[in-house]
Order: sequence, then structure tokens, then C-alpha cells
Amino acid sequence: MRAAERAFVIEGVKLLESALDAGASLEAVFHAPGAAEHPAAAEVLGRADRAGVRRFALREGVMERVADTVTPQPVCAVAAFVDVTLDSVLDAAPLLVCVDVRDPGNLGALVRVADAAGAGGVICSAGTADLYSPKTVRASAGSLFNVPLVLAGAPAELLAALAGAGYRRLATVARGGRDYAEEDLDGRLALVLGNEASGLPPETAALLDGAVTVPMAGRAESLNVAMTATVLCFEIARRRRREAAAAGPQAGEAGDGAVLR
Amino acid sequence: MRAAERAFVIEGVKLLESALDAGASLEAVFHAPGAAEHPAAAEVLGRADRAGVRRFALREGVMERVADTVTPQPVCAVAAFVDVTLDSVLDAAPLLVCVDVRDPGNLGALVRVADAAGAGGVICSAGTADLYSPKTVRASAGSLFNVPLVLAGAPAELLAALAGAGYRRLATVARGGRDYAEEDLDGRLALVLGNEASGLPPETAALLDGAVTVPMAGRAESLNVAMTATVLCFEIARRRRREAAAAGPQAGEAGDGAVLR
Repeated sequence: MRAAERAFVIEGVKLLESALDAGASLEAVFHAPGAAEHPAAAEVLGRADRAGVRRFALREGVMERVADTVTPQPVCAVAAFVDVTLDSVLDAAPLLVCVDVRDPGNLGALVRVADAAGAGGVICSAGTADLYSPKTVRASAGSLFNVPLVLAGAPAELLAALAGAGYRRLATVARGGRDYAEEDLDGRLALVLGNEASGLPPETAALLDGAVTVPMAGRAESLNVAMTATVLCFEIARRRRREAAAAGPQAGEAGDGAVLR
Repeated sequence: MRAAERAFVIEGVKLLESALDAGASLEAVFHAPGAAEHPAAAEVLGRADRAGVRRFALREGVMERVADTVTPQPVCAVAAFVDVTLDSVLDAAPLLVCVDVRDPGNLGALVRVADAAGAGGVICSAGTADLYSPKTVRASAGSLFNVPLVLAGAPAELLAALAGAGYRRLATVARGGRDYAEEDLDGRLALVLGNEASGLPPETAALLDGAVTVPMAGRAESLNVAMTATVLCFEIARRRRREAAAAGPQAGEAGDGAVLR
């Protein structure tokens, strides 16, 4: 169903709650026979009803067949794709650009971190895992509905468009880049994250404006992309909170210093 | 085998390499029939031979039966438990204390982050996932062999022992704690991480010296424990690098500023 109909399946009460919280466009909700006895499921189904979403009861055993999870959920729903155009995120920063991030769990965690840290958006370039696969959706813990997401084509074209919009595009590399703590991460910044095993292709790295590294202690091989994004995005959030506080209480009150987008 | 023999199974070339790199005590290695044609597997088996580890060839199909992973690896090994006593980590900081962290993937990721950030150790209190389950071991990406790990009993006893050793014990809470960026994280610090869904039990939180929060933007529900530990441990590493640099080049040369233990 996914690509052709620009719709995907979300499973479980929590994800359905996140979708409703975010005002996502839901095409239908489905519930298993026992759902009404499950208070949280009954509650979220009521919310979906009030939002005017069509509801279908599934017969015994059907949810088990359509569900991706091992322990089937009492409810699932079909949601419209949430990705937006590149142009619509070009005022926000930082943008997280995925090039060939293959693991759906990592991609989902990255989306969750981008949401929590208030990043401007996540851009999936060619070769990256399916944003709408059940595993990505689960790992995002609902953040898929909260953070602007862009599906982009070839990295070269995307990176040129970002440069044209005034973005500084920094590779995140396991070693050899500048210490992120010493780097200017202000303003229009695009952090480019590569493949879990092989990092960024050299031809992509060559197109960028620089590279940052999260210095590591110990013998750890490397951080995964979600961990790297966690360190970088929360460092940016920390600096913005500090700047908002330095700008005085009025500036601080005008908006939440932690919200970057 | 695990608890009774204080040994556990590691699967795959990468984990076996990490174990050999760390000088872990290996009781035996096993290889599938095709392993010799797999260059990385042949290489690591050679290293195990030179380290004097007993090697056993498995017949066709046996690895598939004993392996936990869906795609069986060409090699696996039995390693001795790596956990150490609480006393042996009481000079290091920060210590990450897990109370009721149930997800083995989160626990493994936490160990990986502790290694990468140079934390002093990870302590698993009662209720926490099995440190030696295949899923934890895989998620640790070999870091299990690099970072001091402690299996502790009831939280109350453990937290009293940490206080006795001069540790400041801070809860990590999703909301309501002090901004970690404003908090003194220096010296003997124990960061206490709770259950994924319910956080720290109130009776445990009441025993602690304070609480820190990673401020979140957006609508994200919360960070998982591994993400929270990533933010906190790398903030501590960043401050230590900065202090080492401020102490002058000689102090900087004396040791790697990023190594906390």
C-alpha cells in the first residue's frame, strides 16, 4: 500500500495517540475484538471517532495477520504520508541529512532525537531506509508525526540545493573531523550522516563544507548515527538555551529556548 | 549455561574481534563449515588460535540451531562473564546506575555509550535486563568487553554504598529535574537511570541527592535511557576536554582528555 497510496500503517495505542496529538491525517482506524475492554485503546478510539476518522472492527485473528509486531496491538490505523518538500524546511536548523542510513531502527531513533532536541528536520537521501517501514515508525516513538521529514533523491543534488539555500553542510565522521565542541554549529547547518558500516561515500564527503567528529574514549568502535545525532543536536540545543538566557529574561520568556525550529 | 557457568555466548566476527582486542577470557570458539572461506572469519579464528583458545568445528546446520541471530554468523565463542565487583569501580566516574532498565537493546546501547564517552562503569541493579543476553551483547557492539560492568542487588543497598564512597547520586528524570547543562557533573557522580516506561520508582528517587533533566523541545515524549546517557556522558566528556585544554598543553599531553576512567 505504502508508496502507491502515500499511506502507511501505524500500530498500537501510543502511535495512534501521537498521530492524533499531531493532527495527522488518518484515513481509517481498525480495532481488534477485545479493544473496547482495553481502557487506553477505548480512549484513543473515542478520540479518533471525535476527529471524524472512519473506524472498522476487525474479526478475531485478523489483526494478528496484518500486524508487523510480534505482540499484536489492539488498534492500528492507516495514516497519510507525512513527508514535506525540501523547500518547506529551508528556514529551519539544524537539518539532519541521512545518506545511506540503512537500519530502520537507527533512522527511527534519529527522528525521535531530532524531535526531542528540536532539530529543524530530517532529510532522507537515496539509499536510506524506508521512513514508513513498521520498524522505523516504531523506533520513532511517534516523533515521525512531530518533526518535518523530507524524502530526497540523489545526495549531490540535495547537497547543492542546501548550499544554494545558505546551509553549511558538515559531515559527521567517526574520526578525523573537528571536535564538534569546538565547532560553530550556529545558523543554517546541515549535519550529514552516513552509512552505519562504511560512513559517508568519499564522493559525497568531498562535496561538503567540513567534517565534525564526536571524540571517543575507550575502545568503542564508533557511535551509531542516532547516538551521534543525539550528541550534536543536544549540544546545539544547549548552546541555544544558554544564548537565550544570556539575552535576558524577556527574550527567554518570548519562546522556549530549547525549541530550534 | 549463562548464570551457572558464568559464561555467555558471543556471535559473529566483530564481537569476537572485540573480545580478543580486550583480552577477554574465551573458553572456546566455534566455526561453521564455510568459515575458512570468509576472510574476516579466517583472520579472527587465526587470532583466537594464537591466543590459545580451543577451537571446535561445527557440522553443517549446527550454528543455525545454536545461534540467536536470524542470519547465523560464521563464528561464535563462549566467553567468561566480564562483570567486576562494585568496589573495583569506586574510583571512577561517572557511574551509570540502571534500575529496572528492561529492554536489552537499551541496556546494550547504554554500555556502548558508556564505553565511547569513557564513563567509569555501568552498574545493573535488580530488575534490569540480563547483561549477557544475546540482544544486550549485540547492542553493546563489543563495548561489553571494554567498560567496567557491575551486577548489583537491591537499589537501596547499592545507592547507600555509593553514598558511602562519596558519590553524588543524581536521578535522570524526563521532567522536573535541573537542566543538566546547569548542573555540576564533576567528580564522583552516579547517574541513576530508571525504567523505560515508568522511570525511577519514587522510593528509589527519594534516596538520591538530586535529579537532572535533559530539556526537550517539540512533542517528543521522552528520550530512552541510552539517549539520555548519551547526552549526559558526552557533556561530561566535553567539559573534561575543555578543562584539560585550559590546564595547558602539558596537562593535555599527559593523558587523553576524553578518557574519564
